[in-house]
Amino acid sequence: MTKTQALDHLFRTIEAGRALGIAQSLLHWDATTSGVPELSLAVRGEATGWLGGESFRRFIAPETLEAVETLEAFGSGLSEYENAMVRETGRAYRKLKAVPPEEFQANLSLIAQAEPVWETARAKCDFEMVLPYYERIFDYQRRLCDWYGYEKHPYDALLDDYEKGANVDMLDTFFAALKAKIVPLLKNIMDNGRKPAEITGLFDIDKQRKLMPWLTDFIGYDRKRGKVGEVEHPFCTSLCRNDVRITTKYHEDSLLSSMYSILHESGHALYEQNMAEELERYALADGSSMGMHESQSRLFENTICRSRAFAGILLPKLCELYNYFTDWDEDMLYRAVNITRPSLIRIEADELTYSLHIMVRYELEKGLMTGSIKACDLPGLWDAKYEELLGVRPDSLANGVLQDVHWSGGLVGYFPSYAVGTAYGAQLVHAMEKTVDIETAIQNGDLTPVSGWLKDNVHRHGMALQPADLLLRATGEVFNPDYYVDYLSGKFSSLYM
Amino acid sequence: MTKTQALDHLFRTIEAGRALGIAQSLLHWDATTSGVPELSLAVRGEATGWLGGESFRRFIAPETLEAVETLEAFGSGLSEYENAMVRETGRAYRKLKAVPPEEFQANLSLIAQAEPVWETARAKCDFEMVLPYYERIFDYQRRLCDWYGYEKHPYDALLDDYEKGANVDMLDTFFAALKAKIVPLLKNIMDNGRKPAEITGLFDIDKQRKLMPWLTDFIGYDRKRGKVGEVEHPFCTSLCRNDVRITTKYHEDSLLSSMYSILHESGHALYEQNMAEELERYALADGSSMGMHESQSRLFENTICRSRAFAGILLPKLCELYNYFTDWDEDMLYRAVNITRPSLIRIEADELTYSLHIMVRYELEKGLMTGSIKACDLPGLWDAKYEELLGVRPDSLANGVLQDVHWSGGLVGYFPSYAVGTAYGAQLVHAMEKTVDIETAIQNGDLTPVSGWLKDNVHRHGMALQPADLLLRATGEVFNPDYYVDYLSGKFSSLYM
Repeated sequence: MTKTQALDHLFRTIEAGRALGIAQSLLHWDATTSGVPELSLAVRGEATGWLGGESFRRFIAPETLEAVETLEAFGSGLSEYENAMVRETGRAYRKLKAVPPEEFQANLSLIAQAEPVWETARAKCDFEMVLPYYERIFDYQRRLCDWYGYEKHPYDALLDDYEKGANVDMLDTFFAALKAKIVPLLKNIMDNGRKPAEITGLFDIDKQRKLMPWLTDFIGYDRKRGKVGEVEHPFCTSLCRNDVRITTKYHEDSLLSSMYSILHESGHALYEQNMAEELERYALADGSSMGMHESQSRLFENTICRSRAFAGILLPKLCELYNYFTDWDEDMLYRAVNITRPSLIRIEADELTYSLHIMVRYELEKGLMTGSIKACDLPGLWDAKYEELLGVRPDSLANGVLQDVHWSGGLVGYFPSYAVGTAYGAQLVHAMEKTVDIETAIQNGDLTPVSGWLKDNVHRHGMALQPADLLLRATGEVFNPDYYVDYLSGKFSSLYM
Repeated sequence: MTKTQALDHLFRTIEAGRALGIAQSLLHWDATTSGVPELSLAVRGEATGWLGGESFRRFIAPETLEAVETLEAFGSGLSEYENAMVRETGRAYRKLKAVPPEEFQANLSLIAQAEPVWETARAKCDFEMVLPYYERIFDYQRRLCDWYGYEKHPYDALLDDYEKGANVDMLDTFFAALKAKIVPLLKNIMDNGRKPAEITGLFDIDKQRKLMPWLTDFIGYDRKRGKVGEVEHPFCTSLCRNDVRITTKYHEDSLLSSMYSILHESGHALYEQNMAEELERYALADGSSMGMHESQSRLFENTICRSRAFAGILLPKLCELYNYFTDWDEDMLYRAVNITRPSLIRIEADELTYSLHIMVRYELEKGLMTGSIKACDLPGLWDAKYEELLGVRPDSLANGVLQDVHWSGGLVGYFPSYAVGTAYGAQLVHAMEKTVDIETAIQNGDLTPVSGWLKDNVHRHGMALQPADLLLRATGEVFNPDYYVDYLSGKFSSLYM
């Protein structure tokens, strides 16, 4: 195989993968934004399975490895993107090679069927309904660890899949440090903290819908290059950089819930929309890692939009829509959007306690992958861990073990990225502050300086840079979770003490 | 290749085609029901092109012909559906084999780009905008005639593609007969007919949306096995028999327009939903032909829902929604939904003049395919033919040559099926009347006897029966357009004379 043949082969495989990927994303969008006839689930599952299987079969063809090996031999003769394409293709190929194609396809069909079942199970608080799906999903994931291979812990194989370089050793240390500092801070706040005012009551959903474009515009999400939908469990999906879609769920009794989920998904979407156009051709138009993607969503959601400065521009906007806020001042609002308390639902958890929710899942998944925990044990263990780490016990399965879509979607090893990503975000913000006046940008209602810095240092690179390299280039330092812990302590001490 | 290998090969090809087809249908649904970011058109076009091309490449593999030839040798040893699968696969294969794969794929990309351009061109009444696309589309269709092959007229190749057995000789005769009888009848009605009352004014669109489920339920369209969307140009699309989607467009100033487009699409949808479940596996879950599909939509739209009996159950429903109808009686309504007059827009044309609109397009397409007409001549010729056949001249391009989506969608030879299908419908109704009391069924608001007869004789067979066989089995006669002409003359003479 010549260099040209090798490049041609990869480009053709990528073109097919992109078309098949768009189709799969759209099947998911269609099912979640507007529902899907229950009787069509089997056929849809087969179609989704076939489309994913086809991507897999094409990618896994021996020519892919031949192309990668041919191009690896060229090294310095390749462009930056070509090099990154070869690196990422080789990495993914060597991982996937171990997975039998029929298992891969069966798993895609399985999760296509499991997701709607999970939705019903959650609505009915019926764990037994989804249990057989979970058993088969975890069984597949356990076998996936063996197929991928690992040095010390089976879970390492999955962790590295979402967060390159992450493993149980690193995360045990990371979560231990967070636990050691956050749990006492939280206890101190609960015992001695000043009580903030709380936003309560009902907030007309049509007005919430009117707030949505103001929020997405503030972040810089380009609605002309995407769509906004309403779903049960919000997500962001990119068909291509010019069609990046976000979703939300409105709750009449929780204004903040949809507001911050929109800001969160807009952060993800901005990353996708800001990627260099050429990246798509090289299959590099994705986040550097799951954690890096999460760093962007949580940076906008929390660091920017739960800041004192943002409360200053948010209050007048809320006053336009709701009489409720007439007597509020900016400090009250700042404190109200930063209320911290032990709670049950991860996606509604506050900035301070969020990582403890992740820790519950991290420990359960770790046990599921060694086999020390079985799927049928999850409801009991879930409740016990919430009691241990957060001091609260779920009042229902829907508010407990059935709250997340991830497991029914075949995502195991994904959750820890949320916590690691947040720590990336804190480190990036620390570096950005050297040249960008973030507070003034927020006060001006113009985040261009912030998104410009992120576009240059993070977004535009997509997967071309690996998280460790990206972090080093952008901040001048290797990963350092202290910025995250310091940021949390500083912010919440001054808010409550 | 053994019989088992041959069947396996066809089933696997069909499975792939189904997954790719669902993906393509969904891309189309997504773009038309909720718009699509303009900057993403190129990537979407590439993806649609790739998906269609992949279906094509799989279908056109030499093994398909080998499988067909292997199974053709078995004849009586095959089941009914296996036989039909081999017949339809062989027919399609031998047609498509002549098309170069890169041309096929380029055409799919072309029409994916052309459709949104047509939409804009129509909105702006700018024919020049869409002309370069039309030129390339007609050029492809002309070459398609040669690739397909034909005996007498190039257009025959395309006509047969939509309506098996149709050709220019048959259609010239058919349209001449219709022209000879309808034009004088229409003239007589316009000169001497009793003037009916007309439904005018504005009709709240939200109330029209409330009427929709009553209409679809009456036809028997199962909304739980589909979705209903709003688009510029209504259509019905089947992802599978359990996910059949219909669309409509509401016009505040025309209650009847959306009402009858819903009834029309529901007729198509009923056909799809009533097909035998096993058909999907054999790639036979489609209409026997385009014309047969159209026979079902127009049978429900016109024969059933523009009947005197339907006026009787529609009036109370309209009175519930709109005060406007307080002073109306059933006869007035019956006559108001059957107003005939020469008009500009095909999809809003009445039952009597409809086929004249088709005739305009038939003659233009015929000329485009011989080369006697060029794409740039269309606006002038269109207007001239409307004047000749209907006595009216378009007041704008949007109401003239730019009104139909078909050409930008690469559909040439499709229009005549509408007229032929309507004639099938009249013949089917004539046969059904021997055992089904249609009028009473309508009066009872329960079409089960009608849909039951159609399910048994038409719907459940899908493509397993060819139109000529289906018609012979269902009616005991070969195709006979007299039923259509007699039905039209009888109905409109008694309405107007």
